Amino acid sequence: MYGWAGKRLRVNLSTGEILTEPLSYEYRRKWIGGRGFNSDVIYNEVPPGLDPFDPEARVCFGVGPVSGSAAPSTGRVTITCKSPLTGGFGDSNMGGHWGAELKYAGWDQIIIQGRAKNPVYLWIDDDNVELRDASHLWGKFPREADQMIKEELGDEDIHIVLIGPAGENMVRFACTFNDVWRAAGRTGTGGVIGSKNLKGIACRGSGTVKVADPRALLECSDRLRQAFKGDIMKEGLYEHGSLCLINVANRDGWFPWKNFQGGAHPNADNMSGETHSTTVLKHREGCYACPICCGRFTKIHDGKYAGEEFGGPEYEHAVPTGPRLGIIDDANDIWHNARLTNDYGLDGIETGGAIGAAMEWYEKGLITAKDTGGLELTWGNEEVVDKLIQMIGRREGFGDILADGADRAADKLGLPDEAHYYSITTRGMTLPGDDPRGLGFGYGLSFAVGTRGGCDHLRSLCCLELSGALYPGLNTKLLGDERANRPVTTVGKPYMVYYEENQKTTTDCLNVCCFTTHWSYAVTTPDQIEYLNAVTGLDFTEEEFQEVGERIFNLERSYWNRLMSGAREDTVPERFLKEPMPQGVEYQTNVGAVFPLNNLLKKYYEYRDWDPATGFPSEKKLNVLKLDYVAKDLAPLRSKYLSEPEKKKKKYYH
Amino acid sequence: MYGWAGKRLRVNLSTGEILTEPLSYEYRRKWIGGRGFNSDVIYNEVPPGLDPFDPEARVCFGVGPVSGSAAPSTGRVTITCKSPLTGGFGDSNMGGHWGAELKYAGWDQIIIQGRAKNPVYLWIDDDNVELRDASHLWGKFPREADQMIKEELGDEDIHIVLIGPAGENMVRFACTFNDVWRAAGRTGTGGVIGSKNLKGIACRGSGTVKVADPRALLECSDRLRQAFKGDIMKEGLYEHGSLCLINVANRDGWFPWKNFQGGAHPNADNMSGETHSTTVLKHREGCYACPICCGRFTKIHDGKYAGEEFGGPEYEHAVPTGPRLGIIDDANDIWHNARLTNDYGLDGIETGGAIGAAMEWYEKGLITAKDTGGLELTWGNEEVVDKLIQMIGRREGFGDILADGADRAADKLGLPDEAHYYSITTRGMTLPGDDPRGLGFGYGLSFAVGTRGGCDHLRSLCCLELSGALYPGLNTKLLGDERANRPVTTVGKPYMVYYEENQKTTTDCLNVCCFTTHWSYAVTTPDQIEYLNAVTGLDFTEEEFQEVGERIFNLERSYWNRLMSGAREDTVPERFLKEPMPQGVEYQTNVGAVFPLNNLLKKYYEYRDWDPATGFPSEKKLNVLKLDYVAKDLAPLRSKYLSEPEKKKKKYYH
Repeated sequence: MYGWAGKRLRVNLSTGEILTEPLSYEYRRKWIGGRGFNSDVIYNEVPPGLDPFDPEARVCFGVGPVSGSAAPSTGRVTITCKSPLTGGFGDSNMGGHWGAELKYAGWDQIIIQGRAKNPVYLWIDDDNVELRDASHLWGKFPREADQMIKEELGDEDIHIVLIGPAGENMVRFACTFNDVWRAAGRTGTGGVIGSKNLKGIACRGSGTVKVADPRALLECSDRLRQAFKGDIMKEGLYEHGSLCLINVANRDGWFPWKNFQGGAHPNADNMSGETHSTTVLKHREGCYACPICCGRFTKIHDGKYAGEEFGGPEYEHAVPTGPRLGIIDDANDIWHNARLTNDYGLDGIETGGAIGAAMEWYEKGLITAKDTGGLELTWGNEEVVDKLIQMIGRREGFGDILADGADRAADKLGLPDEAHYYSITTRGMTLPGDDPRGLGFGYGLSFAVGTRGGCDHLRSLCCLELSGALYPGLNTKLLGDERANRPVTTVGKPYMVYYEENQKTTTDCLNVCCFTTHWSYAVTTPDQIEYLNAVTGLDFTEEEFQEVGERIFNLERSYWNRLMSGAREDTVPERFLKEPMPQGVEYQTNVGAVFPLNNLLKKYYEYRDWDPATGFPSEKKLNVLKLDYVAKDLAPLRSKYLSEPEKKKKKYYH
Repeated sequence: MYGWAGKRLRVNLSTGEILTEPLSYEYRRKWIGGRGFNSDVIYNEVPPGLDPFDPEARVCFGVGPVSGSAAPSTGRVTITCKSPLTGGFGDSNMGGHWGAELKYAGWDQIIIQGRAKNPVYLWIDDDNVELRDASHLWGKFPREADQMIKEELGDEDIHIVLIGPAGENMVRFACTFNDVWRAAGRTGTGGVIGSKNLKGIACRGSGTVKVADPRALLECSDRLRQAFKGDIMKEGLYEHGSLCLINVANRDGWFPWKNFQGGAHPNADNMSGETHSTTVLKHREGCYACPICCGRFTKIHDGKYAGEEFGGPEYEHAVPTGPRLGIIDDANDIWHNARLTNDYGLDGIETGGAIGAAMEWYEKGLITAKDTGGLELTWGNEEVVDKLIQMIGRREGFGDILADGADRAADKLGLPDEAHYYSITTRGMTLPGDDPRGLGFGYGLSFAVGTRGGCDHLRSLCCLELSGALYPGLNTKLLGDERANRPVTTVGKPYMVYYEENQKTTTDCLNVCCFTTHWSYAVTTPDQIEYLNAVTGLDFTEEEFQEVGERIFNLERSYWNRLMSGAREDTVPERFLKEPMPQGVEYQTNVGAVFPLNNLLKKYYEYRDWDPATGFPSEKKLNVLKLDYVAKDLAPLRSKYLSEPEKKKKKYYH
């Protein structure tokens, strides 16, 4: 068998049972890899009513057929679970080297279930798999635990998945890392892993990826690597990391200021990639086989945080724990906050979302210092933010309330409905640092319909809205309309989102980095099929490949539908529908924009063949996608959804 | 003396006195021509409190130094008065050949004052100027009167300014024509002419324009004519007239549907230039010395209006009396309505504005058929629109009420304040067919600050918002920012409006067609100075030229300030500030936009050096512009404006 290892590992932490399961040809062909394998398992093995922290809940780690090969940027891994944040479908993926290492060890996927009596970590040494005691690692930051495990196993070259204290404390938005700093940030995978008393998974692989046509693979990979040498990639992601977006975001007005009250700030350059590179950048770090090398390593030189050294930050990390909370004057505060969320193992986006919502509740008088244990939640109050991040990670005091995310916190505090206006969430998940009134209506639509809640981050990535303008002709070629280059327009956007969601889904099945596809468009779908076929020796066509993406996307959507989440919940935070974008800086492009959701949804449903009344995929579409069992699951729920007694939009699920 | 005729004609209709006044070198250098000459006279001779229909009110006709020369498109004339519609400064200009003819007759300007006892027309035959009886012409359509005068004077080659029945009836938005179909549409110049019992001005000139450097002029003119041969001009204005904008407007969402409730309609192509050209276009007509030839002549072939033949329509004519009233299915209705407003001598924009407001009052229940004399003012009701246009022209029944414009009609009907929300006016003037949420924020800003009320039409013309995208690099060159190409953005727009308003003012002093400058940017300011200096033998610099534009613009602004109209009134109809643009067609680019006025005004005032509290030009600026007498006029009014008892935005002036 070429490409795939052809087997997966099932570990039951309650019983200690470790099983090997073969993956049939049909199964591989139907789901391809990573995200596809994982979504299938979660749909089948985690019933909608199950508590995400129940021992019977699963968490999966999946890689794909080209993972660990010579194709560019093939070191990623997808982690999937029922999300403890949203109660719905949850997945997240991360770069680094662990994904390739898992493949070298001979595995395509790991399914974890059950709960260990005491803290353990999993040690995968090719076929030798064992659970080891992790009591001494419990409470440690990933950077500490990573080093301790490497010393204990006597191998500095292994790669390790780890959670931080937040995951152990079942913070509902705890994330999961590998190589210490590469995070699968969203949907709370770390909390599920923590609920199982699992600290991490160390991996050593001595094998390789068997390639059907090595010459074809190398020729293709070489050609694609050349495509990354352009100025845009070099001057952007290599030179300044994803922080290169700061000045772009500020210019185009999607830079979240004070919980999205604004979209730009005169001092944004304080924290730009350009500034970071010339002040605190220690070195750059690349993931497995990556020609881009967007990873940062930062050292703070002065101020009260002087001496701190850490991986990151990313744009989506620095923004929510910085300007989203009104912090902009001293970038060291922002770098430090990013470091803190990393150490505690918190999703930086959701951390900023929860604190930002609380700050706005405080501003609007919905809570006072009495509710927060004395914390003055004023915008830009770094002292409080520093404390609160740690309190969330430790589930202490008011941090324990915010550790459940903004929407659940509002309800726990008994706040009026108005509080949810400020929680800036869709399906219980807060939006990343991309204001849809500026980054674009494609992003906005994908927030509304995304299969893991209000997230476009590494998800649908409508980079065509920006890259189309950078690469003239791109949108004419892909969407038939160059005007889709404008972010703040509806033109072409429903199809763009449909196209990109499917494309990103297959990219996540291959577990290759979407910066190769969705930022630069250096790697197109035909390129992906070229290396997929070179590695596997199979004959995937573009049609079949795209059908796989659509199948998985619809399966994930149906997971939500089974929870009675459909068209009613396909929306974005009301702020974006109601408040025209104010002016933050003089050169801002999008002042006066609001997000016209309804104009986009109708057409999107048509492309998807989803019933506009329920937002459920049509029975016909599910059957075409070979999801007839899903069609049967949904059949009795369609009328039920329409007749739900309250017919009220749900904010999150249990 | 080169270029200028060097003298103007003053006609007092009350006394029959006809005077020749010389124009000094200093005067010509200070004001250049047409708009400059006229605005100076109106400022000095028409005090703010005077009723526009008072015999002592003036109406001026002005041309410039290059009028009638070989430079491209130099046949225009500016007409200026105190507007009976708004009560403020009013001017309008028109193409055709009359402007060139006036110059050939040896005149730079005509000032009309007083009121004739019986209807008269003015006959200018070079230096021989006489008033002739027009009793037999009274009540005639311009196309009838034009022919009657030509027969009476025995010369088919003369050119004649005329008003229609609406002007005679002092409709507050009656317009003025020459060559039958070329209209100076806005601000009600025709009503002022009518109030003086003047039907028109016939003109025959046997002279020429004395050119200082004929070789330089011809070389420059030839070169500029070449610049119009590009595809955009040919395929646009030549091929389909200004109706070529219909499909563009619909695509970019600034096509006014039902009084600006929407910005696009699926059937817009029914009335597009492309459709017009292949169905009802009889022939094309050019103005004096024009290489563009955008004029249309239409013949309706079928339906109840079959057989009608007439000049036009323009985009800004067809839209307000068509889709703005919900009429779109049968384009013949639209062509017919345009013909009717022309025959009666009505500003098509204001006619559509008044009827459209009334239709929305009717829709919202603010008026009923009892108020309208039984007319059912439902959207798209062509039968009623056909009637109502004629009733307005004749000041009959409900038409008599609408003949004062939407805002005055609301007050005459005793409607609540809410009615003004639907009148879609700024300073008492309705907006033309350009929704600022789509055509662009530059246009929107110019509606708010324009010196003749809510009008960008042939006024500031921020064509850079569109042409910038057609001619890459244009906005980088002119404004330093290519992003100003996007219509729906604030970037670069305050400076764009400042620049374009000044540029358009000097263009109106030269009385050349702004399609040569603001649409194609084939003729730039340096080009204009080149032919101005070639004709006059003078040494205008770009700096001096632009200062003249700024001087005149500030003088006109000060006219409003003397009326206590300033910053409070610098706004656009509330609809554009409050209602996000809805979706009308799938491919519409600007869904979700609202117009962010305040973000633009502040910066604009800075460029203008206008006091942000009052919106009055600073004393320093007025002195720099050699308007020290204006500074003295405004000095006592500044504090008065701020302390006006009600501090309520004024809708129009008396």
